[in-house]
Amino acid sequence: MDSDEFSEDDIVYLIPLFKTKRKTRYVFKLKREGVFYCKFGSIQHKEIIGKIPGTVIKSDQNYSFVVLRAELPEMIWYYKEFKYATQVIYPRDWGIIMAFGDINPDHKIVEIGTGSGGILAFLANRLKNGKIYSYEKNPERAKIAEKNLESMNVPKKYEIKVRDVAKEGVDEKDVDVIIIDIPEPWEVIEEAWCALRPGGKIIVYTPTYNQLERVLLELIRHGFIDIKIKETIVRDIQTKLYAIRPMLKGYYFSAFIIFAKKSLVIPRDYITQFILKKKITSYSG
Amino acid sequence: MDSDEFSEDDIVYLIPLFKTKRKTRYVFKLKREGVFYCKFGSIQHKEIIGKIPGTVIKSDQNYSFVVLRAELPEMIWYYKEFKYATQVIYPRDWGIIMAFGDINPDHKIVEIGTGSGGILAFLANRLKNGKIYSYEKNPERAKIAEKNLESMNVPKKYEIKVRDVAKEGVDEKDVDVIIIDIPEPWEVIEEAWCALRPGGKIIVYTPTYNQLERVLLELIRHGFIDIKIKETIVRDIQTKLYAIRPMLKGYYFSAFIIFAKKSLVIPRDYITQFILKKKITSYSG
Amino acid sequence: MDSDEFSEDDIVYLIPLFKTKRKTRYVFKLKREGVFYCKFGSIQHKEIIGKIPGTVIKSDQNYSFVVLRAELPEMIWYYKEFKYATQVIYPRDWGIIMAFGDINPDHKIVEIGTGSGGILAFLANRLKNGKIYSYEKNPERAKIAEKNLESMNVPKKYEIKVRDVAKEGVDEKDVDVIIIDIPEPWEVIEEAWCALRPGGKIIVYTPTYNQLERVLLELIRHGFIDIKIKETIVRDIQTKLYAIRPMLKGYYFSAFIIFAKKSLVIPRDYITQFILKKKITSYSG
Amino acid sequence: MDSDEFSEDDIVYLIPLFKTKRKTRYVFKLKREGVFYCKFGSIQHKEIIGKIPGTVIKSDQNYSFVVLRAELPEMIWYYKEFKYATQVIYPRDWGIIMAFGDINPDHKIVEIGTGSGGILAFLANRLKNGKIYSYEKNPERAKIAEKNLESMNVPKKYEIKVRDVAKEGVDEKDVDVIIIDIPEPWEVIEEAWCALRPGGKIIVYTPTYNQLERVLLELIRHGFIDIKIKETIVRDIQTKLYAIRPMLKGYYFSAFIIFAKKSLVIPRDYITQFILKKKITSYSG
Repeated sequence: MDSDEFSEDDIVYLIPLFKTKRKTRYVFKLKREGVFYCKFGSIQHKEIIGKIPGTVIKSDQNYSFVVLRAELPEMIWYYKEFKYATQVIYPRDWGIIMAFGDINPDHKIVEIGTGSGGILAFLANRLKNGKIYSYEKNPERAKIAEKNLESMNVPKKYEIKVRDVAKEGVDEKDVDVIIIDIPEPWEVIEEAWCALRPGGKIIVYTPTYNQLERVLLELIRHGFIDIKIKETIVRDIQTKLYAIRPMLKGYYFSAFIIFAKKSLVIPRDYITQFILKKKITSYSG
Repeated sequence: MDSDEFSEDDIVYLIPLFKTKRKTRYVFKLKREGVFYCKFGSIQHKEIIGKIPGTVIKSDQNYSFVVLRAELPEMIWYYKEFKYATQVIYPRDWGIIMAFGDINPDHKIVEIGTGSGGILAFLANRLKNGKIYSYEKNPERAKIAEKNLESMNVPKKYEIKVRDVAKEGVDEKDVDVIIIDIPEPWEVIEEAWCALRPGGKIIVYTPTYNQLERVLLELIRHGFIDIKIKETIVRDIQTKLYAIRPMLKGYYFSAFIIFAKKSLVIPRDYITQFILKKKITSYSG
Repeated sequence: MDSDEFSEDDIVYLIPLFKTKRKTRYVFKLKREGVFYCKFGSIQHKEIIGKIPGTVIKSDQNYSFVVLRAELPEMIWYYKEFKYATQVIYPRDWGIIMAFGDINPDHKIVEIGTGSGGILAFLANRLKNGKIYSYEKNPERAKIAEKNLESMNVPKKYEIKVRDVAKEGVDEKDVDVIIIDIPEPWEVIEEAWCALRPGGKIIVYTPTYNQLERVLLELIRHGFIDIKIKETIVRDIQTKLYAIRPMLKGYYFSAFIIFAKKSLVIPRDYITQFILKKKITSYSG
Repeated sequence: MDSDEFSEDDIVYLIPLFKTKRKTRYVFKLKREGVFYCKFGSIQHKEIIGKIPGTVIKSDQNYSFVVLRAELPEMIWYYKEFKYATQVIYPRDWGIIMAFGDINPDHKIVEIGTGSGGILAFLANRLKNGKIYSYEKNPERAKIAEKNLESMNVPKKYEIKVRDVAKEGVDEKDVDVIIIDIPEPWEVIEEAWCALRPGGKIIVYTPTYNQLERVLLELIRHGFIDIKIKETIVRDIQTKLYAIRPMLKGYYFSAFIIFAKKSLVIPRDYITQFILKKKITSYSG
């Protein structure tokens, strides 16, 4: 349980109890023989193992740190074992995707574009009977993501497949939610339509207006309805008691997030082009 | 399952397939003998029961609608059975709370300030072994929230208790996450500290700067660490293919959301005032 | 002078000194025989004439108001003589245009798309030796703008011409700043290039991404440099002393504002298509 | 005139016509014998003198630059002669202050807190018959500001006085606009009230909520009306034709800007405390 003592392979998050230049934080995995080094001295991992979260630990140079369990956003930012294969979908967008996508622990989810595995880790941590099937066409990236997930102790509610969905499609049917984060998302809208259950949701993460425009056209052409596009600005507020104000600088954009639902309404040109000629068999409603 | 045919007691979401003045949407619960009326005609519920999501249904006046399962954000906005006891925490903040609070399906959660039950519904839908204990001092509001949750078919992963936490405290110990949304949140920070497990998280939803300042002081006085304050602006983008732009008007503020973690570091004045005199027994780490 | 007593033809701004439902404000022009009526009673204009700004005036029903000189943003919002021919450029964007366009009182300015005359009024009020030449293809709108400017007592530092610039061009040469606010701004970029002095600035106010993309292409093709695109979110903060927070709802978008400067660098395709074939004579550097 | 050839003492702005890592820009003042050096080679100033803006100039290492007249925002960012005595009010806020303060070329303006002279330069460039009286209590800063203004060729429409206004007040009466940008703005609200003409405007630039709260209280106590508080987020949009999107990172806060007007309404406690006891003579309406 989260409140148990730390044991081997737990990932910890160290917060200095002294003033540091920038907001210094450390994240690492506990190993019985491990030693953590930083410019404020070293700490034997076994001094942490067996302690409870919130405990204060001292380095051999007498610097104090609070030790907590690392959470996902902290791993993304501070954990050296987390490698960036690509730009990740940031924690500030994970929640919006879950809330407006209404994703729940039993969903069958397909992800197109595994990237570094950031949102995959977030979702896998929240599934019970559900599972995520994640497609990545670049084998190098797939390997990095796989390693990231393992090193972050993400429960095995996922499967990464190396495949170019635009060319070879997805295997799953009756999918509840499809999340797309690739540079040419418009190329896989048709595949997504086929894989989704009726009423299933498509969520496209698209950084530029140019991509947004092309995706929007494809969604309309395929009869997706209830299309919503959102962008989120999350501001951090300074936590100094006598100087409460938003931070001056920060991320003020990440991406446009498009939400839509598969309906059984088929726009006319879609019928002629798509259903009649190509994949009439693929419908599984 | 979500893709099954509609059956009695399912809550449906109707999207007109014709132009309406505002973005008209309808949400209601299916009853075998029920009839849905609106200015575009009526629909017998039994015409919907047995159909699959995404199906097109016509009213007796020949207007077409796509029928989908209603999701939580849609219930909050369109479902007449959902009553506003208070301002709710909106869907745009649900996700941020879940992502930065790192809430997972097995968490033991305490909510102080049930309100209308909006975020309670969101979280309860995402729990498996976890549970939410929600405190509301106003019995009227507690009743409204209870009814809202039932009418939204929220799984019984929650318990609402009528109590003023500032005066009478909470029952739970070793709590993973405490969410506070009441007008005087600073009055329950001490209780929250006692109830939380070490490393547990406190999340305070506070609409004004004045409240923020007082909460921040209390958090610091109680040794909470890793304090983060965030505010979110979610912009809707217009979905017209030839006029893609953010909507002109919308919600550009909801609240300051404060995140912090319980450490075992005890600031000096806290020790003298609190631990020594009052509740030394309450610590359960 | 601004602090002088009110005299005939001054435009006044009345602020109730009592609680009103919405933030009620009144703007009107003083006439010796005039009477102002509202639901809180009537006031003879001559009771205001001769008074100084800031004075308290009572209606015949004993309601009190502070009387001030109306400023432009207040006229735009509350003055009945101001007619909306089109969507106006709002005060929140006037300043950005002036600051990043570095517009000063001696500039020769061309405006393409007079619209309702909002920003024209703002600029004309700030000119000394400068002048604005404003083009509007729709004669009805030009008439409305002309009337708006007169009724707002804007100094005659402007000239409105009824003309479709895309077809017939502009008369001015060696222009310091050109401001464009029409639905097809890309059609007049060439004209703007010809009219501007070297180093002169072009400012395009464009509400959608689709327009933005086309304008950007034209600017690049014509060798404009130092291209900057900005969008502004101005939030109003609630002024209640014990509930300081941003307002919940408001305008969170107005337009993309594009700034660029005319250089003498001519991109290659531009030379072949444009200079050689069509208007080699038009350069007036 | 702005379109004339460059001459000695003009400040120029060089834009590379080649790819640079960051958006490299150079700003310097022309001197007959001057030489400009950068890592892309050197340019004799006299090669620029006599040329017109927009011209392309080559360095001795054959790198090309477009030469333009430097505008204020560019001087603030790139001109080495501009020294930061303090945080400046940034260009993104200059315009908002001018537009909502309705500042015009004939205004008598008082500034409390000269700082580095940024907005002073902006306003002085826009005045004709008006003048700015700027107070700075720190003599070092006043000297830096004075030098900044001279090196930026700002017209002598201003006067900087070294004085602590909170203790010694301001000399001017019947002031149109007072702009306050000091750490304890609440200490000079009374002085501002006395100096302003009835109907005159006060504009307070305040970075934190804590300051905002105290200023707001003082404004209300002194009978200022039509109080408005605004904050501005200006996003830069990426100008790549095939990747149009807001930049990911940037300034997402600068300050709360408070606007209010002096009325002759005197709240009760104000009368007793202030008018009766202290400065009944100071009113100059």
